[in-house]
Amino acid sequence: MASDARRAGRRSGNPEPYTLASLVEVAARAFNERGYDATSMEDLSRAAGITKSSFYHHVAGKEALLRAALDRALDGLFGILGEPGAVDGEPLERLRHIVRRQVEVLATELPYVTLLLRLRGNTETERWALARRREFDQAVAGLVAAAVDAGAVRPDVHPVVAARLLSGTVNSLIEWYRPGRVPLADLVDAVDRQVFEGLRR
Amino acid sequence: MASDARRAGRRSGNPEPYTLASLVEVAARAFNERGYDATSMEDLSRAAGITKSSFYHHVAGKEALLRAALDRALDGLFGILGEPGAVDGEPLERLRHIVRRQVEVLATELPYVTLLLRLRGNTETERWALARRREFDQAVAGLVAAAVDAGAVRPDVHPVVAARLLSGTVNSLIEWYRPGRVPLADLVDAVDRQVFEGLRR
Repeated sequence: MASDARRAGRRSGNPEPYTLASLVEVAARAFNERGYDATSMEDLSRAAGITKSSFYHHVAGKEALLRAALDRALDGLFGILGEPGAVDGEPLERLRHIVRRQVEVLATELPYVTLLLRLRGNTETERWALARRREFDQAVAGLVAAAVDAGAVRPDVHPVVAARLLSGTVNSLIEWYRPGRVPLADLVDAVDRQVFEGLRR
Repeated sequence: MASDARRAGRRSGNPEPYTLASLVEVAARAFNERGYDATSMEDLSRAAGITKSSFYHHVAGKEALLRAALDRALDGLFGILGEPGAVDGEPLERLRHIVRRQVEVLATELPYVTLLLRLRGNTETERWALARRREFDQAVAGLVAAAVDAGAVRPDVHPVVAARLLSGTVNSLIEWYRPGRVPLADLVDAVDRQVFEGLRR
C-alpha cells in the first residue's frame, strides 16, 4: 500500500505523496538492512526518493522514526493480549490463541517486528522498547505457568524455560519467513502444532 | 581455561601468555558486543591487554580472527553430524541426537556460535560461514524429511517448515542462555521434549 501511494505520488507529480506511515516503513527496512547507527537521514531521504527537508516536514528525526516503527510492532503484539481469545478460557487455549496471533502479527508487521527483535539497547528508545518487549514475554510466561498449574501441560515442563523456547520458536520466523512462500494460515497451524503437539507422531 | 592461562601469564609477567585460542575468544566476544565492522585491532588489543604488535605476532588480522572464531563454531556443529548417534539408527532418533548435542555445542561454544548465528554476510568470510551453516541446516532438514517418510513424525508436518522451526527453537538459546542459570543437562532435556513431545500434556 505504502509503495503504491509512493508510485502514485511520483506519477502525479504531487509534491507530498508521503504519509508518515510510508516513511516509517522505509526507515524500518533501512534500519534492518544497515543497522540504526549506520543509517543517516540522508540515506533515508534517498531511499524514500524525497529531499531531506520534505522528510523533516513529516518527522522530527531518526529517533522519532525508530520510535514510530517500534510502536507499530509493540501495538501489534500488545493488541493480541487484549483479544477475547487471550483473555477468556483455559490458560492453554489462551496461550494457543496468543501464539497463533503472534505468528500473524510477525508475518504482517515483519519489518517492524524484525527491528524490535534485533534491538541491542544502545539508545533510550531502544531500551524503552526492550522493556516493553520483556513485559510482553512476561505475560506469555505467566500464562505458561498458569497452564502448568492447571495441569494442561506436561508435568516435567519448567515454565520459564518453556516460555523462552516458545518465544524463540515464534520469533525465529523473522529469520526466514518471507510473505508468499508458505500460506500464512498453514504457517500458523504449523507453529501451533509444533509448539503444543511436538514433532513425534 | 583460556582466561586462567591469561591470568597466570599476567601474574608471572610472562610477555607471551596468550594463545591463539584465547585471542580468538577475546575477539569473538568483542565482535558480538560491538559488531565486527565497528571493532578495530586497536579495540581488540585493549580488550586482550596486550600491544597491537604482540597481537599481530599471533594473528594476521581481524578477518583471520573472525575466520578462526567461525571455524570453531562450525567444527563443533559439523562434528555432531559424524557422531555414531547421528549416523546410526532410525531417522527420528538420529534427529534427537543432533538436537540434544546441538544444545550442548551452543552452550559450551556460546560466543562462537552467537557470532555465527548473527552473521549478515558482509565479507567473504561471512558468506563462506553462512554457506557452511546452510549446509548444516540442510543436513538436519534432510533428516526431518527422512523421519516423515519413516512415519515417525506427525503426518501433517511440512518438513521444510518443521526443520526451520526446529533450528529456530534451538538457535534461540543464544538470546537468553547464560552458563550456570539452568543446568545444561536439564536444558538439553527441555529442548528435546519441547521439540519432539510439545507442551501439551
